[in-house]
Amino acid sequence: MEKPYVVGIDVGGTNTVFGVVDARGVILYSGAIKTGNYPDVNDYITALAKGLKPVIEQAGGTDVIKGIGMGVPNGNYYTGCIECAANLPWKNTVPMAQLLSEKMHIPVSLTNDANAAAIGEMTYGAARGMKDFIVITLGTGVGSGIVIGGNMVYGHDGFAGELGHVIIRRKNGRVCGCGRTGCLETYCSATGVARTAREMLELTNEPSLLRDMQPEDITSKDVFDAAMKNDKMACRIFEITGEILGEAFADFIAFSSPEAIILFGGLAKAGDLIMKPIKRSMDANTLSVFKGKTKLLFSQLKESDAAVLGASALGWEAK
Amino acid sequence: MEKPYVVGIDVGGTNTVFGVVDARGVILYSGAIKTGNYPDVNDYITALAKGLKPVIEQAGGTDVIKGIGMGVPNGNYYTGCIECAANLPWKNTVPMAQLLSEKMHIPVSLTNDANAAAIGEMTYGAARGMKDFIVITLGTGVGSGIVIGGNMVYGHDGFAGELGHVIIRRKNGRVCGCGRTGCLETYCSATGVARTAREMLELTNEPSLLRDMQPEDITSKDVFDAAMKNDKMACRIFEITGEILGEAFADFIAFSSPEAIILFGGLAKAGDLIMKPIKRSMDANTLSVFKGKTKLLFSQLKESDAAVLGASALGWEAK
Repeated sequence: MEKPYVVGIDVGGTNTVFGVVDARGVILYSGAIKTGNYPDVNDYITALAKGLKPVIEQAGGTDVIKGIGMGVPNGNYYTGCIECAANLPWKNTVPMAQLLSEKMHIPVSLTNDANAAAIGEMTYGAARGMKDFIVITLGTGVGSGIVIGGNMVYGHDGFAGELGHVIIRRKNGRVCGCGRTGCLETYCSATGVARTAREMLELTNEPSLLRDMQPEDITSKDVFDAAMKNDKMACRIFEITGEILGEAFADFIAFSSPEAIILFGGLAKAGDLIMKPIKRSMDANTLSVFKGKTKLLFSQLKESDAAVLGASALGWEAK
Repeated sequence: MEKPYVVGIDVGGTNTVFGVVDARGVILYSGAIKTGNYPDVNDYITALAKGLKPVIEQAGGTDVIKGIGMGVPNGNYYTGCIECAANLPWKNTVPMAQLLSEKMHIPVSLTNDANAAAIGEMTYGAARGMKDFIVITLGTGVGSGIVIGGNMVYGHDGFAGELGHVIIRRKNGRVCGCGRTGCLETYCSATGVARTAREMLELTNEPSLLRDMQPEDITSKDVFDAAMKNDKMACRIFEITGEILGEAFADFIAFSSPEAIILFGGLAKAGDLIMKPIKRSMDANTLSVFKGKTKLLFSQLKESDAAVLGASALGWEAK
């Protein structure tokens, strides 16, 4: 009999969240440990195994688990290793998939969080039945998971799909954490939105609800709240953000001509505020042969579950 | 017994060139007809079949031909149709693969010329054994064929891989034939190089061998010839062209992390003149995780044969 469940594990800098998931994408049992408590990766593996045990027991034991999928920053699908992830406690290269599968006696596959999100959309979400699509994660940074011909794009080295780091402004671009300037994520991530707000407050005298705050305290959520109160500046910040995303999406379409681009993560919650300007700009900027062909969609994974679901989807193919 | 040969057909606006090709990429027999002589596509098919017949007979008859591959502007791999190709005599949508296979009783596959070049490199050329690479064709325009995980990227509609039309200059970009501005091919095609030359001659008073010509007559070949005579302006034109290509390549790498980018077509003949600045710029602009990983190569298909070889490579999988 086909084993009916998989385990999804989302490894974040603060928490590691996991769950047992069925074929329809329902998280049946779940748990969590604190990633930051384990500076030694072996202690982390021991704690993770200890946390997983009761959750797997509840589901019926290891015999009903087909595989474990992990979403990890800088996770390399080909090697199963985490390579120099800045926000995780372990330095250098950690053979995470191997360590965990040896401990659990279950096959483990891993990839980075944005790729996990894309596999999650394909397995349980907005991309069911699609063979060509791109998931764009709009969080602290901008990430991406690209699927072409039904396969995740990993590239020759396992690190493909860094669309937050295409250069969208070549002159006087914003400084990026990656050491270059003008990267998409410096404009269109949650932090990029806050940066745009601070720039506007400084460069204009326009009245805005955002002036009631300390500029350095402003978050994308504050910009969203102000926009919902019809604050003109806040609305324009979302317009600008959407315009830039639309410009970038037009170039992505010229590359892989996806059936859909799916928005995932915090900023996607802004709904029409961000979707409408993206759509307008994407249509205006797309090469005519592709115009009107690529759908723009929101993720269909429930945000609180999305990371575990996305990771779990990898578990179905783990070997 | 496996059929030992394929037929490759390169359909250009002026000529249609074809040949019988073996598994090692040797063109055994070849021929040509004038595309422009047949405004009715049915007459074209009749003439093409008549031209193919003796060539296929020489090889041993239709029984030794596994399939026919065609490289055609705007050719759609999925449908086998040519869709609104500006430089071909037939308007609207032409079901070329179907028409020819019904006439010849041999399976026919087609795709656009840049994709055919990529399949040619993978089958017989510089990309043998590679699963992830991009071929950039530097001719009158800039085209591309993208291979990911060993598969040609066609996108959801069959038209993916228009990398000549990513926007490389968002402000005051050059007007492109596609109706937009700032496209890569307005700078980095053969015509783009000539445009850069005209701009420089107009905007500076710098002496140059190129001043001996009528600006509107200057071609990329003239710029190349001047650069080979150490003309400073001509050398700088190649520098600038290479720099812009390197910027674009860095973004392509962020998308699909290819093992190699392969240069094909007229401008690639400039050799180090174009390769060195591309390499320098690509290294300077690439995100650190990818730096130094992607090889930059020249096509290994002999230019006069490349179009037929590339098309023929599709014939091996034609069904």
